[in-house]
Formats: sequence, C-alpha cells, structure tokens
Amino acid sequence: MFEQMKQRVLEANLLLPKYGLITFTWGNVSEIDRERKVIAIKPSGVEYGAMRAEDIVICDLDGNVIEGTLNPSSDLMTHVQFYKNFPNIGGVVHTHSRWATSWAQAGKDIPALGTTQADYFYGDIPCTRKMTNDEIQGAYEEETGKVIVECFHERNINADEMPGVLVHSHGPFTWGKDGFDAVHNAVVMEECAMMAFTATQLCNHEIEPMQPELLDKHYLRKHGAGAYYGQK
Amino acid sequence: MFEQMKQRVLEANLLLPKYGLITFTWGNVSEIDRERKVIAIKPSGVEYGAMRAEDIVICDLDGNVIEGTLNPSSDLMTHVQFYKNFPNIGGVVHTHSRWATSWAQAGKDIPALGTTQADYFYGDIPCTRKMTNDEIQGAYEEETGKVIVECFHERNINADEMPGVLVHSHGPFTWGKDGFDAVHNAVVMEECAMMAFTATQLCNHEIEPMQPELLDKHYLRKHGAGAYYGQK
Amino acid sequence: MFEQMKQRVLEANLLLPKYGLITFTWGNVSEIDRERKVIAIKPSGVEYGAMRAEDIVICDLDGNVIEGTLNPSSDLMTHVQFYKNFPNIGGVVHTHSRWATSWAQAGKDIPALGTTQADYFYGDIPCTRKMTNDEIQGAYEEETGKVIVECFHERNINADEMPGVLVHSHGPFTWGKDGFDAVHNAVVMEECAMMAFTATQLCNHEIEPMQPELLDKHYLRKHGAGAYYGQK
Amino acid sequence: MFEQMKQRVLEANLLLPKYGLITFTWGNVSEIDRERKVIAIKPSGVEYGAMRAEDIVICDLDGNVIEGTLNPSSDLMTHVQFYKNFPNIGGVVHTHSRWATSWAQAGKDIPALGTTQADYFYGDIPCTRKMTNDEIQGAYEEETGKVIVECFHERNINADEMPGVLVHSHGPFTWGKDGFDAVHNAVVMEECAMMAFTATQLCNHEIEPMQPELLDKHYLRKHGAGAYYGQK
Repeated sequence: MFEQMKQRVLEANLLLPKYGLITFTWGNVSEIDRERKVIAIKPSGVEYGAMRAEDIVICDLDGNVIEGTLNPSSDLMTHVQFYKNFPNIGGVVHTHSRWATSWAQAGKDIPALGTTQADYFYGDIPCTRKMTNDEIQGAYEEETGKVIVECFHERNINADEMPGVLVHSHGPFTWGKDGFDAVHNAVVMEECAMMAFTATQLCNHEIEPMQPELLDKHYLRKHGAGAYYGQK
Repeated sequence: MFEQMKQRVLEANLLLPKYGLITFTWGNVSEIDRERKVIAIKPSGVEYGAMRAEDIVICDLDGNVIEGTLNPSSDLMTHVQFYKNFPNIGGVVHTHSRWATSWAQAGKDIPALGTTQADYFYGDIPCTRKMTNDEIQGAYEEETGKVIVECFHERNINADEMPGVLVHSHGPFTWGKDGFDAVHNAVVMEECAMMAFTATQLCNHEIEPMQPELLDKHYLRKHGAGAYYGQK
Repeated sequence: MFEQMKQRVLEANLLLPKYGLITFTWGNVSEIDRERKVIAIKPSGVEYGAMRAEDIVICDLDGNVIEGTLNPSSDLMTHVQFYKNFPNIGGVVHTHSRWATSWAQAGKDIPALGTTQADYFYGDIPCTRKMTNDEIQGAYEEETGKVIVECFHERNINADEMPGVLVHSHGPFTWGKDGFDAVHNAVVMEECAMMAFTATQLCNHEIEPMQPELLDKHYLRKHGAGAYYGQK
Repeated sequence: MFEQMKQRVLEANLLLPKYGLITFTWGNVSEIDRERKVIAIKPSGVEYGAMRAEDIVICDLDGNVIEGTLNPSSDLMTHVQFYKNFPNIGGVVHTHSRWATSWAQAGKDIPALGTTQADYFYGDIPCTRKMTNDEIQGAYEEETGKVIVECFHERNINADEMPGVLVHSHGPFTWGKDGFDAVHNAVVMEECAMMAFTATQLCNHEIEPMQPELLDKHYLRKHGAGAYYGQK
C-alpha cells in the first residue's frame, strides 16, 4: 500500500551518505503523504548499507506506527512538527553534517554572505534559541520542533523561502517539496556553512552581510514569479 | 556544424565535477569561435551526469541562441563580456568552488603569497567592487561582466596575465586560451585560495605579500619570452 | 586456538584506514579475552594492506607474547593499563587522526558543545597532563597508560561513560565493549574534534559549553536505563 | 643501463598523486646513484597519468642530461644541491602540498607540537629565509638549494635527523634514503602541517612547543641506537 512511498524515502535516505552528509546513522529523511495523512521515515539506528524499502516506517501524524516492524527515527516527532506547521513542504531531512553542525554548536545563524546561499535560502539561516530545561525533560523531540516553529514565527521567517534551520547545540534540519528536495537543501546548507566559516575567519569576524538587493536578485531569479534560471 | 565545438565544451564542463569544483549544477564552461563569432556554453540547470554534446547551446555574441533546444546558462552574458573585452581568450569558466568563493564572500583579493600562485597569476587575484542597485536591477549578468572589466581597467590589470577574478559576494570566474585551459586555471585558483586562507590565519591576518622579484621570476619562467618550464 | 580473536582484531584494525583515521601504520586496535587473560593486538610497524590474521600478536597482561612471530604494537603496555583499570571494556584503539590529535597537541579537552558528542561521550573529552621527564625516560608506554588512568581518577571521570581520552602532545585513545565499538568511538571523536574546532573559531574562542540538561538528555536516551534510541 | 633506476623513480613519482600531495604536475621525485654519479628525475611539466619509465631523465651532478629525450624538472639544480651537501640521502621530493605550502607562504617553521612529528622530524621543520634579489635573478633553482643548505648550516640542523624543509614563499622539499622514503616523509610533513595549523588556531597563536624529552623519546625510539618501534 505504501510501497512507492517507502522506495522513495529509502532512496532519499541513501543520498545522505552519497553526499557525505552523515557518519554512521546520524541522519534521516522523511516524506509526508498529505492526502493519506501518513509519514514515511527512516527506522532508528539502522545502518544505511543494510536498509531496505520494507524497513522504512509508516506513521500517522501523532507518531503511531501504521506499517513497519522497526521503531521510527527518534526524531520523528520533530518532523511531525514541520509537517503540521509548514503546510507546503513534503519532505524533511536531519543530519549532523560537519559544517552546519559547527554553526549550530556555535549558536549562530549562518549569515547570507553570497549568492550561493541567496540562490536557495532567502536570508540568514536561523539558529534557534537554547531549549529550556522543561522542554528538554518533556516531550523532547516534539519540543525541538516547536522551538523551531517558534523561531520562524517570532522572527517572521517564511518556511517556504527558508528551507532550513539550525537547532542550537544540535544540528541542521532542512525541508523541501519532497525528500529529494530536502536532501538537496541539506547539501546546499553544508556548502554555505563551510564558506561562511571561511569568509568570517578571513574577515577576522568583522564581516558584513551581502547586499539585500543582491540577495533578492538571486533568490527571485530562481524562485520568484519571473524566474529564469534553469529550463522551463 | 558545431559538433566539434560542442564536444569540446561538454568535455571541459565534465572536468568541473572531476576536479571537485562544483556542487550540483553550480558551474559552467564556454568557448568562443572567434571566426564564426559564436559561443558554445553549458545549458542552464542541467545535471552534469546526464549532459550530452547536443545539449550544449550555441549562441551569438548578443546572446541569441543559434543552435540548441535548451536555455543557455544564465551566466551567458557575463561570459560574453569577457570575450568582447579580453580579445586573446578562448574559454571561460564560472564555479562556486568552496575556497575561492569564500574569498569572494569576504570581498577580498586573493593575495599573491607564494610561487604556486605566481606560476599562473601575475599578482593578487582581484575581487571586484560590490555591484550597485541599478546594476543588480538592470541587465544583471551583463553588468556583472562589466564590473569585472571595469575592475581590470581601473586597476590596470592585464587579463592575459591574470586569468581570473572574484565577483564580490558571488564567486570566481577564470579564463584561458580555451575551455580546458580555463578549467585548469579554476583548479589553480582554488588551490591558491585554500593556501592563502591558511597562511593568513597562521599569520593572524598580518601577512606580507611575496617579493615582487619572486613573483616575476615564477610567472616569467613559465610565461615570459625565455620560459624554460615544461617541454618545448 | 586464538583464530577467531585474531580474525576479529584484524578486521577491526582494517576499519581504521577505511574510516580515514590513519596514515601509514599510525594506529592499532586490540581486544582482550578476560577469561583467558590474553590480549590480541596489531603487530608493530606492519602495513595495513599486507596484514593477515596470523600476524596479530597474542600477549598476556604483562606484555609477554603468547602466540605470534612479530613484535606487538609498541603501544601494547598502554592498552594493558586500560584493560587493568577499566574492567568493563573489551577493545582499545589508538590513532593519530588529524582533528583529535590537533586538540591533543593544543593540550586541551574537546569541549562538549553539542548533541553529537553528548550521544557518545558524557561531557568534555579529557586531555591528560604532560608527562614528567621520569615517566618519559621510564617505562614510557606503560606510564602513558598510567597518566590516563590518573586523569580519570583525579577528575572523577567514569571510563564507561567517557570512552576516550587525549594524551597531551600525542593523540587519542578510545575504547568500547569490543574492538569494533572502540573504532566506532574513534570515528565519533574525530567528528566531534572537527566540529568543536570550527565552533570555537566561529566564536573567536569565547564559547560556552552545552547545557548540562541537554548533555544528560542525549547521553541517557542512548545509554541510560530508559534508552529509546535505535532498535530493541 | 638505467632501467631499474628509472622504473623506481617513476613509481615513486606516481605515489605523489596517490597520496594527494600534488595538483597537475606540481611535484617531482629524484633519486641518486652515488656510485655512478647520476640522478634520475621526473621530466618537466609532464602529466603523471601519461608518464612512462623511459620519460625519466638521467642527469649528471652538473645538471647535464645523460640519457632521455625530455627536459628534466626545472627543480633539478635544487635537488643537486641536496645530494652534494647531504651525503647520506638517496632521494628527494618537491611538492606544493596544501598544508605544508601554507606554512611556507606564512614564512614560518612547522613547530614540533606532538609525537607524530617527533617520530620523523627531530624538532621544528625549518623555513628558510627569503631569497635575495640577486639569488632570484641568478641561477635561481641552484640558489634555492643553497639557501636551504645555508639554513641547515646556520641553524646547526642535521639533515639526517630533519628530512625536510620549507622554502619561504614557495613550498616543501623532503628527502630520505631513497625516493620512496622521501615521499613517505612528504606525506608525514603534510599531516604535521595540518595538525600544527589546527593546534595553533585552537591556542589562539599562543602555543608552546612540545617537551624536548618527549621529542627525544619519540625520535629515538624509532631512529636511535636502541630503536624498538616496528619489526627487526
């Protein structure tokens, strides 16, 4: 019943090691089927090399397993928060990729310093506040998602224009129209994180953000109404 | 009619992923045939793995497509500016390679600190000024090329001796006698950008340029009248 | 008699080059069989590509060779100290991996800055004090082990919760329930070392440790009584 | 007549790309046959992928070609200086490897910060002074060698215990008992250069050298009279 969905999510997960975004099992991709109200997600702690389509777990939006014999990723309830609050997204990725995670550990936004980032992320990639003790002791994974949603709300960031976030002291999440698109954005964020690090060091921490006009130009020539990058 | 040219430009484009200079489709190589007044360039937004020679787009120097069914790279009009203003070059490369792009994001020239750079680039690799709002809102890609040409003109840099540039908040362009040579220079710039970063950090930002005599020696033993590097 | 043990230790050693943790022969893995009171360890100075199971050396806990024609790793007596003082461990790894060794050369603990480290190491990864001249001139490798044990004792660190250490001016050791687990922890430490470096630089050396509540949460959801990460 | 020597030098040269030490043709290995008073060296500017044993050039100690149809590496006369002044060495390597070259560009010694370096280099790896204008305008490559020899003489460094050097604003040379040993030392220097960079940054440029006793211990347990590392 969910064979196609499982196959897609398996393939999207296998892109994480291909792109060098993960060590061991430190990452997961999910997709949502909004009509059927189910999420397909990587099982928890399973090696990528041995994973098969039937290992992908199908859950409902409360986190109950609908189909599958393995436990879903422990990050499931964070993914659920994205799907509930960002209505246009179809896939979510979490990794501990080196450069993006370093920014998360530093507790800093990845500043928009150039057109590489502007082509995909419409501004600085935000880093959340630290979680409170209550949030950590509570429904931790769900609270992680809520802190992210709060961050986007308070800073008035549109998740459709900013397909990624850093969780403070943790690491990156990205999303997109489906799982493959979310992986794509995870690769881009990692590149941007590396280059923002290097540029910041080159300027001895005194670096200015890119011009807003240039940010607009690049974001909108790919994503705006009159986009002219790529093929029709 | 342009089969050979397309095949060459395809092969030069495929060197970009081979040398680790690009992520996804973030780069392009073009060549000019100055007799026939045409440019061959990578199509916009097409994956390298799936590209074939017939996908390469042939354009005239006003940017009109002469042959090909796909859109040319959105950077086409920047390439055109190079071909119009630098009469001895035959190929152009654009990438978002990590180290060179970091310098562009920092808005700094890559300083000539050693013989690796001196063997190919006759001095600091320049970074352009920021573009004005009008330039960004106007014919953006063409204006990008014009800002580069202005930079070389105002700083009295000879494009034949300095086969590359950084566009502020954007990334590197390189050129050469043909597309392969331009790719070669892109690889060299990336190495130089990495090593200039590291040396600058080692000196805590207080680093002096290399001696002009040593710069001359290395550049000229490869490119001068009495060059003696390599085989005849 | 020790065929299975030798085969396991060979395979665990071959993971070191696979994970990019070693250059040439700069690393070794051992395992202990606590019932038979023997240690299996890599031979000294033998290339990984040419190593066979019969080259693995079997020693007793005084360092005497029980079986094998080659010299054991010169680090053997350091391993012995771990096995004698950390009663729950079954495997030990030593490498000169780039990022962790850099921290050892800096003489600094790898600070716990994020959940990647918290998932495996319950706090900062300690760096030992410098060795005294007497220790260096004496039974150097054994003294190295003793300095590590002293570090854990004086700082009241539990080796079961902190499966790794940096030896000052030298490099990392890790351990685990067996050789494979010890290699796993060596890979994790290398990732953590890279990301702690980058985060420290991003904060211009003014970085705070992660919240103790978050450290607890991540360490305990994988290793505590009610662990719920992974499959049952 | 020199077939074996050429084959060896070819194979040693091919290790440079294998170990990631070179870009394009930026490196060369030579060996000397002290009985026959000839040097075998890589030809200048020839791609590694296409090089054959018969391309290796045989020269005498004045730099005259004895056998071979190609020009020898332009660095030949630097190699000659090593062979003339360091009587126990049999092979020389030059590269522009990233990390070591960065230290050369910074004009700084690679400080001995840990046992990795101490296992091979008996102290800081020296960086030469800048060359004078006369030296650069004169017999440049030979003068490069002379500046290195001067550095070792003035600082009272024994080339047998310090098998490498950085040429200011240029890059590393290493040597050894033969070409393979010299390549081995080039790999080690590159690792040491990376880790010394990172440690220096971690300490915000305020780092102390390793203890001389530890330096002695590690260098001498591999190279001293009572060496006990490796197999007999």
